[in-house]
Amino acid sequence: MTVRVAVAGASGYAGGEILRLLAAHPGVEIGALTAHTSAGRLLGSVQPQLSSFADRELVETSAASLAGHDVVFLALPHGQSAALAQELDPGTLIVDCGADFRLRDPADWERFYGSPHAGTWPYGLPELPGARDELKGATRIAVPGCYPTAVTLALFPAYAARLVEPEAVVVAASGTSGAGKSAKTHLLGAEVMGSMSPYGVGGGHRHTPELTQNLSGVAGERVTVSFTPTLAPMPRGILATCSARLRPEVADSATGAQEVREAYEAAYADEPFVRLLPPGQWPSTAAVLGSNTAQVQIAVDPDARRLVCVSAIDNLTKGTAGGAVQSMNVALGLPERLGLPTNGVAP
Amino acid sequence: MTVRVAVAGASGYAGGEILRLLAAHPGVEIGALTAHTSAGRLLGSVQPQLSSFADRELVETSAASLAGHDVVFLALPHGQSAALAQELDPGTLIVDCGADFRLRDPADWERFYGSPHAGTWPYGLPELPGARDELKGATRIAVPGCYPTAVTLALFPAYAARLVEPEAVVVAASGTSGAGKSAKTHLLGAEVMGSMSPYGVGGGHRHTPELTQNLSGVAGERVTVSFTPTLAPMPRGILATCSARLRPEVADSATGAQEVREAYEAAYADEPFVRLLPPGQWPSTAAVLGSNTAQVQIAVDPDARRLVCVSAIDNLTKGTAGGAVQSMNVALGLPERLGLPTNGVAP
Amino acid sequence: MTVRVAVAGASGYAGGEILRLLAAHPGVEIGALTAHTSAGRLLGSVQPQLSSFADRELVETSAASLAGHDVVFLALPHGQSAALAQELDPGTLIVDCGADFRLRDPADWERFYGSPHAGTWPYGLPELPGARDELKGATRIAVPGCYPTAVTLALFPAYAARLVEPEAVVVAASGTSGAGKSAKTHLLGAEVMGSMSPYGVGGGHRHTPELTQNLSGVAGERVTVSFTPTLAPMPRGILATCSARLRPEVADSATGAQEVREAYEAAYADEPFVRLLPPGQWPSTAAVLGSNTAQVQIAVDPDARRLVCVSAIDNLTKGTAGGAVQSMNVALGLPERLGLPTNGVAP
Amino acid sequence: MTVRVAVAGASGYAGGEILRLLAAHPGVEIGALTAHTSAGRLLGSVQPQLSSFADRELVETSAASLAGHDVVFLALPHGQSAALAQELDPGTLIVDCGADFRLRDPADWERFYGSPHAGTWPYGLPELPGARDELKGATRIAVPGCYPTAVTLALFPAYAARLVEPEAVVVAASGTSGAGKSAKTHLLGAEVMGSMSPYGVGGGHRHTPELTQNLSGVAGERVTVSFTPTLAPMPRGILATCSARLRPEVADSATGAQEVREAYEAAYADEPFVRLLPPGQWPSTAAVLGSNTAQVQIAVDPDARRLVCVSAIDNLTKGTAGGAVQSMNVALGLPERLGLPTNGVAP
Repeated sequence: MTVRVAVAGASGYAGGEILRLLAAHPGVEIGALTAHTSAGRLLGSVQPQLSSFADRELVETSAASLAGHDVVFLALPHGQSAALAQELDPGTLIVDCGADFRLRDPADWERFYGSPHAGTWPYGLPELPGARDELKGATRIAVPGCYPTAVTLALFPAYAARLVEPEAVVVAASGTSGAGKSAKTHLLGAEVMGSMSPYGVGGGHRHTPELTQNLSGVAGERVTVSFTPTLAPMPRGILATCSARLRPEVADSATGAQEVREAYEAAYADEPFVRLLPPGQWPSTAAVLGSNTAQVQIAVDPDARRLVCVSAIDNLTKGTAGGAVQSMNVALGLPERLGLPTNGVAP
Repeated sequence: MTVRVAVAGASGYAGGEILRLLAAHPGVEIGALTAHTSAGRLLGSVQPQLSSFADRELVETSAASLAGHDVVFLALPHGQSAALAQELDPGTLIVDCGADFRLRDPADWERFYGSPHAGTWPYGLPELPGARDELKGATRIAVPGCYPTAVTLALFPAYAARLVEPEAVVVAASGTSGAGKSAKTHLLGAEVMGSMSPYGVGGGHRHTPELTQNLSGVAGERVTVSFTPTLAPMPRGILATCSARLRPEVADSATGAQEVREAYEAAYADEPFVRLLPPGQWPSTAAVLGSNTAQVQIAVDPDARRLVCVSAIDNLTKGTAGGAVQSMNVALGLPERLGLPTNGVAP
Repeated sequence: MTVRVAVAGASGYAGGEILRLLAAHPGVEIGALTAHTSAGRLLGSVQPQLSSFADRELVETSAASLAGHDVVFLALPHGQSAALAQELDPGTLIVDCGADFRLRDPADWERFYGSPHAGTWPYGLPELPGARDELKGATRIAVPGCYPTAVTLALFPAYAARLVEPEAVVVAASGTSGAGKSAKTHLLGAEVMGSMSPYGVGGGHRHTPELTQNLSGVAGERVTVSFTPTLAPMPRGILATCSARLRPEVADSATGAQEVREAYEAAYADEPFVRLLPPGQWPSTAAVLGSNTAQVQIAVDPDARRLVCVSAIDNLTKGTAGGAVQSMNVALGLPERLGLPTNGVAP
Repeated sequence: MTVRVAVAGASGYAGGEILRLLAAHPGVEIGALTAHTSAGRLLGSVQPQLSSFADRELVETSAASLAGHDVVFLALPHGQSAALAQELDPGTLIVDCGADFRLRDPADWERFYGSPHAGTWPYGLPELPGARDELKGATRIAVPGCYPTAVTLALFPAYAARLVEPEAVVVAASGTSGAGKSAKTHLLGAEVMGSMSPYGVGGGHRHTPELTQNLSGVAGERVTVSFTPTLAPMPRGILATCSARLRPEVADSATGAQEVREAYEAAYADEPFVRLLPPGQWPSTAAVLGSNTAQVQIAVDPDARRLVCVSAIDNLTKGTAGGAVQSMNVALGLPERLGLPTNGVAP
């Protein structure tokens, strides 16, 4: 069986990465590639890295151009997926890389996005407890944000095992592709090379409610997250440094550190795309470049009585396109690893 | 008056930066430049950026070669300053960029450095309350670590004004010059470009007790610091993202955010090298490259009830060599700004 | 049919890249992974990006450990392949990523490497006229150097079609992984980020005789090459900017530029891994990252009467490991594209 | 004497760098800072690195706002200087960083810029034979382009001494600040980090006629230049790799290489801002970052019978703003080094 796949937003960073992965996926056939500003151009002129699709023409993004496919990936700016999705066949699997259907609480959506909430779709983070059940056979999938993917994988086992208190502190560094392909002065190479800077500080980043939702869902209580994203001088990658106070019974226990380790080992023992590193080895974004792997490592700080959890992903692969393809595989009943590299392009 | 200055460790990154700054300092004359492995070589061959000293010969680091100067900068590996300092004239101003004399508590030193404590010298962070008084006329100065400089400037006004609770969480990104000039595989360009990774996680980094010492001193109570340093793909710069829970009376006050702002404005109103940015503008390491300026900005996160404080410095300038020269100026009674650029080399 | 493959030098950059590619190759099974200094360690600790082989142990490089495989890749320092190859079964396919067997003229070898010449093996650049015939069924393959791969693909069609004079000028920029994984001060991240610098200037680089050999072979006359390699602040990639005077009859012809274009179109019409870009689009190293694709573009400069040819490759993929796997495929009669990505990891 | 200086285009990269340098220049007082789109904003919000001018307001660029200054630096897009210059007092020293007045041949201008030629001003490259005489007392100065600065310094001594043939081949790598501060997709950090790519290949770059003009002027005959600029993944810096055939009498002479060396030593013996490196040491852009120094090195390639000359400059300092300030110093009769750093910010 080969499924026929369309990619909406094929001219952007997420769309390009979806195509790179699908080119190596044995179960798919590539149908329409759509764009808006670049419609009419050849893909090779806007995505010069995609040699195997260089001569494919981009067509205008519309319900008509996306019709007749088994799977449609939406890699569009936030707010555009909802209207388009409504016009597509209910039996088509829609995998939305945008934010429109990630949040469950309409109040969260309205506060952070300033528009009416479109709804909630099954959440495409298969590693999250219960997620695979929701994804199997689904025809609508909301792919997580890149930061929430990295942070949730770093922290959820600690909340699932009730090891830490419900106030997490997260500082994450992202490559600048996370900001998309629109030309903006502060994202110019001359501005970002050699520079680290924060943004959305103080709780304002739109991924904050998604983090809270994921961790609260696992913890069974409201978890607050102090989230500070920073822009790092690299094209890709997210390094999420997360911490939370250990619960007193864990901090004071002689076996606390071991319990923590075991919780993570149990959570990730059978996960094909999460690699809990051996003790003493720490994640790096270089090691996961272009792969669907998340590297995770943890440490207990006895003085500060905190658990520090660090994860590294490629924001465009596991953080977006890879997570999307992985979720498609789960939804369609294909082997979950199909078409997804686990080895990074390093050095 | 011109003071005669020697630089020990002139072949390394800190030593080179001291020389770059002193070349523009109108009150000094450069005497001996010393090194160990590179002794006998011309400075131009090991520090090709220092055109103005290219033909100066490096001599062996020793009490003899350093004798006869008014000021001696020590830019040596940790543990080498103490023995050397003992042999130098008590009247010579020694400015030590190493760690040997930074910590007050011998137990901290022994725990983190594993050797006997050499002593404590006046601490070369003039912005810290009381520090200028200690530095004036001093003949021995311990220059702070690069991370402690960035973190202390980000957080101390909040502790001085009793705005936050005594548990700070710090995640800092450093350019790789912070790791020094010794050849190590994990510091190769091919390894670090495009990569973010943490190290010393869980409280193990040697700057942790220095952070605790500085913040506790200001707070008047023991402050714990969960400190995670990360290596960023840039040659220079530190971005320190720091946070702490607001004290309940501040978090619950309608004027809490304003109190915080005023505390920082008061702390930095007259500081020549700390720039509290206008609201909404955030520090970047690029903006302080090569300058002695620290950029600071703060935000209150009402949901997480935390204060987030971010600072950016050049680790080799304000974080090492610039701080050293600034402290020398204070000690010698020179104008504090002398020879120190405040404008960064950007883009 | 599955061939059993060993990789000698699996701890280095070339060895790691060979493994990354072979992990996606459906026709191979991975046997021994060997190293010297790192023997006894798990691969995951020295190649953290290779998740799929993380638990494989590195064994000592020796004829014994490499015996019993159908294919042996040698990714060793220059000068080590010859002795080892002699001890391996003559029927084993040895693919040598080192320089030992690339040069035909012993005098060239001795002049540039200072040791006796070991011999000449079939040259693993399938795109070179006649090369596939030599490679089919071969049991010994000399993989080209990274620069020679980039430069030869940029220039050979012009020499094959007798369009330019036999004096080429090449300036090539390479990512620093080209210098290998040994720790050296001048390759530290702090040194190379933000920096471009040349090396081996004036004809001294060891790839010079290989360039001369390739182009002379195609031209049917001695071609001299002025070759200047430069180190660029990126982990991977080679951009080769090559030029040569147009022959007068081409420069003076109204259809000269068209003839040039047609020669390149003819040369690369059926090549799976060379993409002659559409007119006006120029190669970039980012576009070929992690892929086995070479991008090529040309321009005629009517004022300078020169042909300028530019190619971009990933030095570790098409320039080393990808070229090695491609040559293995040809030698074994497998489909040439097997296991080799053509799409780059960009942005 | 203090001269009052205005900077037009203070919001851009060149304008910002002029201000950084002037902040350390003891002979100037900063007057109007002008911009167009950013007029009305504080400088600190558009040039966050310029702490010392952070509270200065940008005013609209106009003859009125620029009136009443002794010196006016124009850092404007090409084509805007001519009209503005006409409206300024003839006695005001205008230092134009744009291209409008660089070329002598109107046909060159019209061919490369497509508009009528505005005229020719004294050329602000003091190192060029005869240039200082023209600059002394001048009230109009055309600052050279960044590439022409680097290339001319690399090559002119060879032409002045008649050592090489009149066909030069130049491949230069530039940091992306050379492309300016306008937001363009292909200059985004995510696009340029990790990437080298050429542009303007085949003689189309607008600096080509300026190169030809400079070298022909020195050589006393028409010199053609095959010029290929490339974009390198760094914010600043130009590395120019230049070569030309040695004249036969030089190539065949036993003392040819020595003659070449002596010609360069003679040319640069007394130049404060050009450093001919000791034999064996090669220029790097890192070593000149933020400084007004040009590093130069040469090698004779006996096989290719070519002279290879390499120079490194900071495109924004020696290549633009530093060259402008240096020329101002010459014009005003100030010490040429005033306010200009010769030591680079490295690592």
